[in-house]
Amino acid sequence: MEKRELIYEGKGKKMYATDDANLLIAEFKDDLTAFNAQKRGKEDGKGALNNKISTQLFKILKEKGIATHLVETLSDTEQLVKKCEIVPIEVVVRNIATGSLSKRLGLKEGMVLPFTLVEFYYKNDELNDPIVTDEHCLVMGLVKSEKDLETLRHIAREINSILFKFFEAKGLKLVDFKVEFGIDKDGNILLADEISPDSCRFWDAQTNEKLDKDRFRQGIGEVKVAYEEVLRRILS
Amino acid sequence: MEKRELIYEGKGKKMYATDDANLLIAEFKDDLTAFNAQKRGKEDGKGALNNKISTQLFKILKEKGIATHLVETLSDTEQLVKKCEIVPIEVVVRNIATGSLSKRLGLKEGMVLPFTLVEFYYKNDELNDPIVTDEHCLVMGLVKSEKDLETLRHIAREINSILFKFFEAKGLKLVDFKVEFGIDKDGNILLADEISPDSCRFWDAQTNEKLDKDRFRQGIGEVKVAYEEVLRRILS
Repeated sequence: MEKRELIYEGKGKKMYATDDANLLIAEFKDDLTAFNAQKRGKEDGKGALNNKISTQLFKILKEKGIATHLVETLSDTEQLVKKCEIVPIEVVVRNIATGSLSKRLGLKEGMVLPFTLVEFYYKNDELNDPIVTDEHCLVMGLVKSEKDLETLRHIAREINSILFKFFEAKGLKLVDFKVEFGIDKDGNILLADEISPDSCRFWDAQTNEKLDKDRFRQGIGEVKVAYEEVLRRILS
Repeated sequence: MEKRELIYEGKGKKMYATDDANLLIAEFKDDLTAFNAQKRGKEDGKGALNNKISTQLFKILKEKGIATHLVETLSDTEQLVKKCEIVPIEVVVRNIATGSLSKRLGLKEGMVLPFTLVEFYYKNDELNDPIVTDEHCLVMGLVKSEKDLETLRHIAREINSILFKFFEAKGLKLVDFKVEFGIDKDGNILLADEISPDSCRFWDAQTNEKLDKDRFRQGIGEVKVAYEEVLRRILS
């Protein structure tokens, strides 16, 4: 597989074209950003850790029937993925109230939600990724139909069911996570982007210690140690 | 009807108990506030104008089958209303993009929306009335069930259908509006609060001149003249 021109650079990854028009190479970066990139940092080896973690989680999800864009691992920081058009909606799934949810709605930090919340955010850095309702998504044409929104919500809940149980067995609480979806050339909705401590909140089941990007957001430190611990538990 | 103690003071109205446990007196204030009361002002006679405008609109809606809390007008600034428990959701209906919708989602000011949007905001001054999805309303217990949300949405759309046509015939565009609902002692959902230039946006159909609280928000001036013009057209 020949790596060709850079076609997109996001906060956590670079996407490269390949000699196959239907495949891209995703390269995981060591950069860390928070608060819509107002806080920036770097952690050597973070990209490789996220690549390993995300690959492992995508494999688990694939085994349970979730279609993903992942084709194969190419190197420590690179994976081959199916090219797809990213749906401009960040789908956030929450089991426990924290972060922006607690701040925005006054919900007690750490409160176990009476049911799992699924939220949609319009993926738009300039607008600071505003939260949107189904009607907003349709007014803005972010998806083709209400059915697509139901599908996103359904897959997101499925992913949560699978991963919540998986992490529970590893002594980790899956507090919340963000996923993105893409539509491939045949119109299939695929799980895309990544699932990693950059896009999830993991709390140790015993101590509630944060083992995710909140260590960077909140300046707790030992970011890489936490990510390594998440990988260790996933592989345990 | 005897007016008794003040039981609640909001930004635009004071609510008084009466000698009937099921009835309250709403007194319309001359105060004007915007941006969650960060901007404050006063306009002599504004309360009386809103009382007249809202009473007229509630009567029109009642004739079309919308249940409201209004019993009767008591004076220039007072009306007798059924006591009800206010649902802590501000229901916003939008026909044209402007204001916070345009700012938040980047929608072009003045764009006619492809369909009428209904949005819910959690009525909470401390939190600055955050926008909420159906799932948030249920997680926070703002309503008893999903059916209640459907009912709110349905009545809000009905109100829009009736008032949009009414104002169209008066040479006014009903751009957007906010309504609140209450639940009476028998469990009925009633339109409560008010519908006035404080809670609606009205644009002149020919000139797009703003005839509502945006004149105060944006410091355009002649607030009362605009409210008087809205009343004149309603009664014409």
